[in-house]
Amino acid sequence: MDKLNEQLHSKLNAILQHSTESKQELLSLLEGVELKHKGHYKTYLAALMGISSRLIDENTYESIIPNRELVHNPLRITHGGITASLMDIAMGSLVHQFLPQQQAAVTSEMKIHFLSSGTGNELKCLATAIFKSDTRWVVQANVYRDDKKLVATATGTFMIITKRA
Amino acid sequence: MDKLNEQLHSKLNAILQHSTESKQELLSLLEGVELKHKGHYKTYLAALMGISSRLIDENTYESIIPNRELVHNPLRITHGGITASLMDIAMGSLVHQFLPQQQAAVTSEMKIHFLSSGTGNELKCLATAIFKSDTRWVVQANVYRDDKKLVATATGTFMIITKRA
Amino acid sequence: MDKLNEQLHSKLNAILQHSTESKQELLSLLEGVELKHKGHYKTYLAALMGISSRLIDENTYESIIPNRELVHNPLRITHGGITASLMDIAMGSLVHQFLPQQQAAVTSEMKIHFLSSGTGNELKCLATAIFKSDTRWVVQANVYRDDKKLVATATGTFMIITKRA
Amino acid sequence: MDKLNEQLHSKLNAILQHSTESKQELLSLLEGVELKHKGHYKTYLAALMGISSRLIDENTYESIIPNRELVHNPLRITHGGITASLMDIAMGSLVHQFLPQQQAAVTSEMKIHFLSSGTGNELKCLATAIFKSDTRWVVQANVYRDDKKLVATATGTFMIITKRA
Repeated sequence: MDKLNEQLHSKLNAILQHSTESKQELLSLLEGVELKHKGHYKTYLAALMGISSRLIDENTYESIIPNRELVHNPLRITHGGITASLMDIAMGSLVHQFLPQQQAAVTSEMKIHFLSSGTGNELKCLATAIFKSDTRWVVQANVYRDDKKLVATATGTFMIITKRA
Repeated sequence: MDKLNEQLHSKLNAILQHSTESKQELLSLLEGVELKHKGHYKTYLAALMGISSRLIDENTYESIIPNRELVHNPLRITHGGITASLMDIAMGSLVHQFLPQQQAAVTSEMKIHFLSSGTGNELKCLATAIFKSDTRWVVQANVYRDDKKLVATATGTFMIITKRA
Repeated sequence: MDKLNEQLHSKLNAILQHSTESKQELLSLLEGVELKHKGHYKTYLAALMGISSRLIDENTYESIIPNRELVHNPLRITHGGITASLMDIAMGSLVHQFLPQQQAAVTSEMKIHFLSSGTGNELKCLATAIFKSDTRWVVQANVYRDDKKLVATATGTFMIITKRA
Repeated sequence: MDKLNEQLHSKLNAILQHSTESKQELLSLLEGVELKHKGHYKTYLAALMGISSRLIDENTYESIIPNRELVHNPLRITHGGITASLMDIAMGSLVHQFLPQQQAAVTSEMKIHFLSSGTGNELKCLATAIFKSDTRWVVQANVYRDDKKLVATATGTFMIITKRA
């Protein structure tokens, strides 16, 4: 076992010995990291969020996250930064579904209204395109709780760029 | 060693055996978790980000994050959701510095312009109040790279609420 | 005829003698002023715009303007400031429909996406509430052309205030 | 005197006979129309607003309007649509100052915070560029009263397009 591996196990031990916090959250986090390393998640942020996504029709993209402690703020509701990330990811992913391989979408700007507390078991984001041109898409996103209440709504502009060879 | 502890070490082993990704990032993440459990960070998101903050004058709040792989998007630049989180945290924290203990600030809305790629060693966010009333603050935030280039700019509205007894 | 009346007629003469521009626009403008003076329009801006509005169901307010030269920009399409005004008026009016007499709504912030040129005979704005509390409403508005194309979309926050006695 | 001229004078008479409202406002409006017809103002909206503008340094554009009844809302403060128009015009004009003749700037989106009532004798808008690329500019604008109080603040994205031959 190499030096860094040892350090990692000893750090994990240190956490486990002194912590009264939920070990379940830590396990979820490590599972996320494993999935990130395996390529299932593209970013640590997505791994932390435990996001799962799919195109549900030709104009709507859905992204869902479990509303667990890993994404909470100190008030035990979803962190606003996580809600913002969820919407940015869902809106950007929607655009990417429809771009040819040599193009990419970059968030140019985004405005978010935070409307109700992120409570319940999961948060579902639905992203829909409201305008498309060769150079920019304007996308709208809503985030809902289990009880269908609207947690947040956003609009964003995505610039279409050509990837460097 | 209890069941969950065992599971955690075995998950860590699984990650270490099969991953070619940087173990350093994982160590930083575990250190963040430790600091979260010790109360240094209030959220897992802040722990992932490794954020450090201070009031630099009576109207300006500064929050800095290391621009490490943990906060990157697949293009190896800062994830837009992280930049948004950084600005939301800095703006909200600024307001909280000036509220009496029985009050709290809630983000009502926020608009972000993403201007340049988040590259370099760290990102620094400076948040400043541009309007204050008893019921809402309007705050402005800029995020800069090491080379002083403006990465993002945002404005947000924060509602002042009275905490429940 | 008093001094100012004389001045007004002589100004009108000056305009008519030297102008090659459409007199029809000037007539529409004077008719708007007349309606403003009679109380049909509450503002000169609304008179210029020739706005007409109605509540079309319990959650939707409609405001329509003729897309005439009076509201054009130099490119002969609807001026962005007019489109913004149309949406602000429709959204604010929606809120006012549902407030008790001693309360008023004040625009706190508004974000507008300009999507397509304002061409055709008229522009129709539909405003809908997406969030309501005792202290603020969040409202969404779309502006459409005759051919149903979306010209602009907006969201705004309206603060509910109690009028001074 | 042709038919339409006669109609215009008779409309003016009708207004003057039955109105108790300020004739001074009507005179200002007709003077604006005259300046519009002479090419001094490019739009009826600018004529109504009585806007005057200048580049004050290589990065700042200033637009001022008299805060007269013509631009008021029913509460006798500046209409929010006028404030929005003032900022859109100032921001767009700033960009146009720096574009070659074959290019134009189009407002893509704009977000406005309304902070204080538009009272006093005039409103001054200062627009500054915060980001420039070949395809878009991001511009910031503030509107101030005589007493230097901040009435509104905005950011907007302007797309740079090539004019058709």
